[in-house]
Amino acid sequence: MKIPHHTLAPTPPMGWNSWDCYGATVTEEEVRGNAKYIAEHMKEAGYEYVVVDIQWYESGAVSSVYRPFADLTMDQYSRLTPALNRFPSAKDNQGFKPLADEIHALGLKFGIHIMRGIPRQAVHQNMPIKGTPLTARDIAKTNSICPWNTDMYGVRSDIDAGQCYYNSLFDLYASWGVDFIKVDDIADSKLYHGSHMDEIKMIRQAIDQTGRDMVLSLSPGPSHLDEAADLEDHANMWRMTDDFWDVWPLLKDMFTRCHKWSKNVGPGHWPDADMLPLGRIGIRSVDGGASDRYTRFTEDEQITLMTLWSMFRSPFMFGGECRDNDTFTLDLLTNKDLLNVHRTGKNQRQLSRHDDEVIWYSETEDYLYVALFNLNDTSRTLTFDLNALPDDIKPAGDCYVVFTDEKKTLNQPLSFDIRPHASILLKLSR
Amino acid sequence: MKIPHHTLAPTPPMGWNSWDCYGATVTEEEVRGNAKYIAEHMKEAGYEYVVVDIQWYESGAVSSVYRPFADLTMDQYSRLTPALNRFPSAKDNQGFKPLADEIHALGLKFGIHIMRGIPRQAVHQNMPIKGTPLTARDIAKTNSICPWNTDMYGVRSDIDAGQCYYNSLFDLYASWGVDFIKVDDIADSKLYHGSHMDEIKMIRQAIDQTGRDMVLSLSPGPSHLDEAADLEDHANMWRMTDDFWDVWPLLKDMFTRCHKWSKNVGPGHWPDADMLPLGRIGIRSVDGGASDRYTRFTEDEQITLMTLWSMFRSPFMFGGECRDNDTFTLDLLTNKDLLNVHRTGKNQRQLSRHDDEVIWYSETEDYLYVALFNLNDTSRTLTFDLNALPDDIKPAGDCYVVFTDEKKTLNQPLSFDIRPHASILLKLSR
Amino acid sequence: MKIPHHTLAPTPPMGWNSWDCYGATVTEEEVRGNAKYIAEHMKEAGYEYVVVDIQWYESGAVSSVYRPFADLTMDQYSRLTPALNRFPSAKDNQGFKPLADEIHALGLKFGIHIMRGIPRQAVHQNMPIKGTPLTARDIAKTNSICPWNTDMYGVRSDIDAGQCYYNSLFDLYASWGVDFIKVDDIADSKLYHGSHMDEIKMIRQAIDQTGRDMVLSLSPGPSHLDEAADLEDHANMWRMTDDFWDVWPLLKDMFTRCHKWSKNVGPGHWPDADMLPLGRIGIRSVDGGASDRYTRFTEDEQITLMTLWSMFRSPFMFGGECRDNDTFTLDLLTNKDLLNVHRTGKNQRQLSRHDDEVIWYSETEDYLYVALFNLNDTSRTLTFDLNALPDDIKPAGDCYVVFTDEKKTLNQPLSFDIRPHASILLKLSR
Amino acid sequence: MKIPHHTLAPTPPMGWNSWDCYGATVTEEEVRGNAKYIAEHMKEAGYEYVVVDIQWYESGAVSSVYRPFADLTMDQYSRLTPALNRFPSAKDNQGFKPLADEIHALGLKFGIHIMRGIPRQAVHQNMPIKGTPLTARDIAKTNSICPWNTDMYGVRSDIDAGQCYYNSLFDLYASWGVDFIKVDDIADSKLYHGSHMDEIKMIRQAIDQTGRDMVLSLSPGPSHLDEAADLEDHANMWRMTDDFWDVWPLLKDMFTRCHKWSKNVGPGHWPDADMLPLGRIGIRSVDGGASDRYTRFTEDEQITLMTLWSMFRSPFMFGGECRDNDTFTLDLLTNKDLLNVHRTGKNQRQLSRHDDEVIWYSETEDYLYVALFNLNDTSRTLTFDLNALPDDIKPAGDCYVVFTDEKKTLNQPLSFDIRPHASILLKLSR
Repeated sequence: MKIPHHTLAPTPPMGWNSWDCYGATVTEEEVRGNAKYIAEHMKEAGYEYVVVDIQWYESGAVSSVYRPFADLTMDQYSRLTPALNRFPSAKDNQGFKPLADEIHALGLKFGIHIMRGIPRQAVHQNMPIKGTPLTARDIAKTNSICPWNTDMYGVRSDIDAGQCYYNSLFDLYASWGVDFIKVDDIADSKLYHGSHMDEIKMIRQAIDQTGRDMVLSLSPGPSHLDEAADLEDHANMWRMTDDFWDVWPLLKDMFTRCHKWSKNVGPGHWPDADMLPLGRIGIRSVDGGASDRYTRFTEDEQITLMTLWSMFRSPFMFGGECRDNDTFTLDLLTNKDLLNVHRTGKNQRQLSRHDDEVIWYSETEDYLYVALFNLNDTSRTLTFDLNALPDDIKPAGDCYVVFTDEKKTLNQPLSFDIRPHASILLKLSR
Repeated sequence: MKIPHHTLAPTPPMGWNSWDCYGATVTEEEVRGNAKYIAEHMKEAGYEYVVVDIQWYESGAVSSVYRPFADLTMDQYSRLTPALNRFPSAKDNQGFKPLADEIHALGLKFGIHIMRGIPRQAVHQNMPIKGTPLTARDIAKTNSICPWNTDMYGVRSDIDAGQCYYNSLFDLYASWGVDFIKVDDIADSKLYHGSHMDEIKMIRQAIDQTGRDMVLSLSPGPSHLDEAADLEDHANMWRMTDDFWDVWPLLKDMFTRCHKWSKNVGPGHWPDADMLPLGRIGIRSVDGGASDRYTRFTEDEQITLMTLWSMFRSPFMFGGECRDNDTFTLDLLTNKDLLNVHRTGKNQRQLSRHDDEVIWYSETEDYLYVALFNLNDTSRTLTFDLNALPDDIKPAGDCYVVFTDEKKTLNQPLSFDIRPHASILLKLSR
Repeated sequence: MKIPHHTLAPTPPMGWNSWDCYGATVTEEEVRGNAKYIAEHMKEAGYEYVVVDIQWYESGAVSSVYRPFADLTMDQYSRLTPALNRFPSAKDNQGFKPLADEIHALGLKFGIHIMRGIPRQAVHQNMPIKGTPLTARDIAKTNSICPWNTDMYGVRSDIDAGQCYYNSLFDLYASWGVDFIKVDDIADSKLYHGSHMDEIKMIRQAIDQTGRDMVLSLSPGPSHLDEAADLEDHANMWRMTDDFWDVWPLLKDMFTRCHKWSKNVGPGHWPDADMLPLGRIGIRSVDGGASDRYTRFTEDEQITLMTLWSMFRSPFMFGGECRDNDTFTLDLLTNKDLLNVHRTGKNQRQLSRHDDEVIWYSETEDYLYVALFNLNDTSRTLTFDLNALPDDIKPAGDCYVVFTDEKKTLNQPLSFDIRPHASILLKLSR
Repeated sequence: MKIPHHTLAPTPPMGWNSWDCYGATVTEEEVRGNAKYIAEHMKEAGYEYVVVDIQWYESGAVSSVYRPFADLTMDQYSRLTPALNRFPSAKDNQGFKPLADEIHALGLKFGIHIMRGIPRQAVHQNMPIKGTPLTARDIAKTNSICPWNTDMYGVRSDIDAGQCYYNSLFDLYASWGVDFIKVDDIADSKLYHGSHMDEIKMIRQAIDQTGRDMVLSLSPGPSHLDEAADLEDHANMWRMTDDFWDVWPLLKDMFTRCHKWSKNVGPGHWPDADMLPLGRIGIRSVDGGASDRYTRFTEDEQITLMTLWSMFRSPFMFGGECRDNDTFTLDLLTNKDLLNVHRTGKNQRQLSRHDDEVIWYSETEDYLYVALFNLNDTSRTLTFDLNALPDDIKPAGDCYVVFTDEKKTLNQPLSFDIRPHASILLKLSR
């Protein structure tokens, strides 16, 4: 039937996530600092979710490399809780409630990351599950593990107590005031083709029964197109790729993925090109083959990235340490045209691709946007033929080059010399 | 850019195809007989393409089972031509021109089936290729064969002469007046995951350079969702399944496929659930595990089939011997509500599925259509909650049951007892 | 170089194993009872190993179905120890020493089963590893698990402490007086093609450094012929199949496997057709699709089984409760001709196979053995042509039918009517 | 039963093959020239088979690259015949008889290469098959082709006429006096895991029914160990690898393969490490990434190669143009110790391998041979511990280094500095 959770994300979710900067180690103070910055500098542009990424329950986390079998902070019902050395406000069993309250007070929303499943330590300690006489050992899938992290076992969907566990988990998160959940080790199993769809469905049901609005985001990718219908029915966003970092081949490859998934973009359901590794990142993360740095993308590549994400309408989850943003980064993240097409674009799609020359199109209420991308390693002249526009679409005459603000005469065909990896975004009044 | 060939099929193609009745053996007289019937009884409903299926160049074809390495009729440029014993009007090198003319004179359009590639016999006889000094041996892919038919080798896309061959082929078809081409052994390779996309692209270009409008249909399935964007860019229809026959498991399975592919349905590009094996079929075909018969589908199943095809908007290619249609079959094929939602439906999609209870939705200018399907082997009561309709959609009050023409009060929820494999199609005024 | 461990098993190992009767639940009293029976009735025939199969460290084991994540008895160094409720003689940290002593006193040898790896509970409790400052968490492979049992993680071969752990394990077993080790979850990974060869090599080294003779047996199968050379270099026996039970299709299938592996049979290295599910089995096991019973094999099939195992020279590990042996079973297990060819056969191989008629050959010092097997479900007449014998082999004239003791004239060709699934074993003096 | 064809190759076949020099293009004159050389210089050492490799029926062959769909010379029964421009002695339908006679007169034996199957041109021309009313079209497998050569279709084993064809083929070869057949596209299918075993069996039967002795060699590799038993039952030699050329990585890799296959070496059945690419090769071949040259192997590598082939007992099929042999090459090919261990070695096997240090062992009547190989790219000191010899083997005291003829004192352990890729072959009197 009509899918209620789709109303939670009518436009692509926007916000900040701690992963690209802090790996598995972010602290409450860092989250708070970024939230304040966002409230001041980015909220108006639409950034609203502040998300604490993986292993907030690991008191000894030191980077983006997980410590095998580390002890995790956990309550009496097999549910992980914030590590107090990193999140002191969680004291007295308050969990993330105080931090979420703070963030709500800034006019923002609060999100957390979780791993699919139940903690292995709860299983080996045979802890209770709230709302059922069964225990962690009863509900764990004996051979369902994540290949890259040792925290969890999968949860059985063939007995009611499995659903009970997920319900108890999301009840807790609702009581904390969580608005956004990123579930990991679930959209692509990494061991087998496809997702853990049975657990996705349990999580959907667990969220719904709380009565609280929580956006559901699924990781990692690549999700599989064969499962697109099910993903849309159960989640708000799901990853199209494995982790995205600031190297050109990953960005170039995203064009193919965006083209493949563009039919599946729409209110409430957003294929996800992953976080924006811009600004200062890698502070305590070593993923992506680098550590503390400003993004390795050139300015041209950054504009290309943001233009593609905007035209395609991928979620914007900024990965940089906000307080270290330079002007270029902040301006790019809050560019009015990008935000306009990102939030209100319609009929967006790849118009054409010849080798490394790609053209995307999107419509907003007042404008037509056409993006010309040069993915080649040499400069290229790209031309755009106005006849390629849909038949019922007529540009009214004005044509602007976004970013340079240059006005172009609407001569046929429009032609541009574009540097390697760079792009031109045109705005045509309609 | 805008895709010109999409204008050729603004609504899902409709017509008749000889395969389900006549396998590889249909004659000119049988084609003509069916065309006349269609002109008289089905054209008004929208059926227009009359398609001669596989091996019209095989003078000794006896059923749907191919004779290995049979001699094929061929012109001096490695192009197959109609077998004169079956298509006498093709005499004097006229090819299908006279037959196409006749069909055009009836107000209908003419189509043919071809196999991907160049005849193996042309290669082994080293025949010329029109427009190039190279020969059949030069352009054949040495190890690209169809696993289920011995007629052809694939054509090389890495040398210009390969494109020359396809150009010469479609030039010939254009000169005959062909309006519709079904290319086989191309949408799913059966040996490897995926299609022969390089030859699909050559065929697209070959059609375009003729200047003649020809609808392009790709077989067999299952096509792969991963290639959906490319299929849409190059063809008008492509099969979602291997051959479809009149047995329930294949029909039940189609619901899953239609759900998966529903994003890819639209003007000019139609995922294809395959032919309608209704009425009298199997006259000289033994495929699908049966021979000469009336369709093995029950009447309930036939209505279910036509309702799904209509709601999803799959092409309608009737497979029966038209002249043997009974009233039930003809009425079903020309049902005004089915045709309305088939030709003008928008936002069509599966609303929900719980086990064997499936609900589909589509909108036309004046009506909302809701189809309730019971795929179970026992009777079921299905209910439809009006709140499941999109927010901006308001039924005006009238509700009719298509087929029984019964008027229902628009009470909440609408509830129906449905026989096994049967369905209810509701029409709500808006 | 010359492989020292091959001297430990100059003939195929023979003995008894608790799995077929008792699943994961055998008790000391049952082991003792069987050992006494063997000493009295089977030792003279060559049966010597008494093996305690899986989960002797699981105090709550109830059948052959494992209890997920059950608590296991373990020492302070992450090494599993016998459950005292099942093995009371292990009290005061004596482990299996007292039981091994008893069995040695009977003139027999003592064996145990272990799972590849280190207990998951040791990892989650972060227990020490003897001889290294590292702990269980350091040496566990984070994503190496057995798909059908939750007891263990794999052990890392890339750090010295991994080898330390296996050394400490086999030091303990040596101190107990263990003579035979069956390692499970190692010869076929069940998740990937191939074995866990890195851990096989660590176990080899761990055994060698103890200085004690321990026969090494690897499970489960199917092992892969591609790894035969490595298996032979590191183990004494390895399984050719997954678990073997008393149903005909598994027995019939073993003929193909024995043919494939017959080159790899030799002193010290024995491809293993698995245990002999004869006599009374399934007492507390539900594997193989049945429970407490006498073997489901007919007498003909039992003779066929024992004849194949003998001719091929697979280990004889009896699976039945010895004390319930009937005369037929005991006679079959101790048949002098079978034992002769099993222990002293040379040049053994399949001579021919035509459909379901299979002939095997083996030579001993005084006799030539020829086995004719009818694998068909109907009676067949099988003939043996004496010219099929190797050129340098000349039968001296006497020919006996083993089991019936009938003397046959050595006419050409020898011909026998054989019942379905039955066999004839011929003994020719040389 | 006893396998008659094993008597045809009691020692590993030795001879010359035209492939490495002449690709698909060798002429009668070149064959004759090499045969004369062999009779004079190599016959005494045991080289006896002179083999004409692929496409002797292709009059236009120019190198080792096949001309797609080339016309082939063929008789009236779909059997390929020698191209007269290359083999003028085959005139008057004499086939290879005159050339074979010449070679026999030199005291040598004659061999040919064939592709599995029936010529595609025979199928498309629908030629007769000798001894059956069926034709080429009837017996061809419709979708069984070689992925790298366009000459043939596979032959059906499910109808008698398929066997008839192979019988007619080998009858012809028998009438020509052929002594050795190398069948290609059969031991590894290159498209699927495994061989074309059904056609191997037909060929075995076809050879047997001729009554003539013909050694059967199967190509290309890698053959699969899983099929070793069947290969041994039906052929005399089969390839362990794809084509072998004069580059070190292929030679290094052969050590692993020889270790895996060493159990399958024995009188009549020889796993084949492929031809010896020594001396002058590549004259009209461009395979292996090079053209006309002396072998790219260094002298050390050549000795390593010949030592491995000899110890393992792979067939010796020399690939060089004999008449261009230099002294080093001829001496190496005819080294008495290599030949001794190659022809009379027993119990040969890899004794040990640690990283790049490999030791092989073999026994002859008078000597023990131990080969020490340094596969590393730096010099290494390898030592051999006499205790590694089998228990029942006692060296009598004399120890010689083959090639240098140096006498060594039999001190413990024997130790040698060995250059990169080089080897030491020791001969110990027993």
